[in-house]
Amino acid sequence: MIDEPLASPAVSQDEATHDLEEGTAFTPRFDADGLIVCVARAAADHEILMIAYMNAEALRLTVATGEAHYWSRSRQTIWRKGATSGQTQKVREIRTDCDQDALLLTVEAGGDGGACHTGRRSCFYRRVAESEGGEALVFD
Amino acid sequence: MIDEPLASPAVSQDEATHDLEEGTAFTPRFDADGLIVCVARAAADHEILMIAYMNAEALRLTVATGEAHYWSRSRQTIWRKGATSGQTQKVREIRTDCDQDALLLTVEAGGDGGACHTGRRSCFYRRVAESEGGEALVFD
Repeated sequence: MIDEPLASPAVSQDEATHDLEEGTAFTPRFDADGLIVCVARAAADHEILMIAYMNAEALRLTVATGEAHYWSRSRQTIWRKGATSGQTQKVREIRTDCDQDALLLTVEAGGDGGACHTGRRSCFYRRVAESEGGEALVFD
Repeated sequence: MIDEPLASPAVSQDEATHDLEEGTAFTPRFDADGLIVCVARAAADHEILMIAYMNAEALRLTVATGEAHYWSRSRQTIWRKGATSGQTQKVREIRTDCDQDALLLTVEAGGDGGACHTGRRSCFYRRVAESEGGEALVFD
């Protein structure tokens, strides 16, 4: 997600950046809270279903089991997606971005095929529209 | 991105959650650093191009100009995407998720049509693959 190189990087920074971006070592960069952001899209049509976070253990469990596990920031615990809703996520592919601080999961959702706890398929069920005096959300 | 309701929420929490999830007011929830995560996808084919962050001012500029502005966490400044690379992003749609702490932008990329500073169209140019003793990244 870097638009351009940092100004005047040291040589060692250049090498580290090169390894991160052009290397084959998977070295996910967790943030100060130990989390990495994840986008989940549907395998069938690539609709974006949700955004959630993983810590290292959730990522390990996801890779080990093939079922998406996330870190709940509100409950401060790992959850296997769909454990209560049935909306499990079989992980077909994990991709990472240039600086390895984000993941893109391609998943097959179980249950009703959705991902959102509101009952909708995708969490992104509202569009930001211009409105008098600002923006409003439209369901479409 | 909530999988299930919190345990024993207070009534006022219920109402706030309902407004957040089922309302038409756009009330983006910025994190402790004042940022909201954004996924940008291509208008033409919905390929996921990148993940970046906005603060309130970057979001305001994005809405006002129709050009994606993000917050650079490394440089601690707002940048208009493509200002130096030419890879501008005309924003065709902004969506938000159930709890309004993430944005999905549908964009038309300028310049070479890409989004990644490495020269690739998408930042997600590597797949996590199983490898001896762990995972490795594959360019495909």
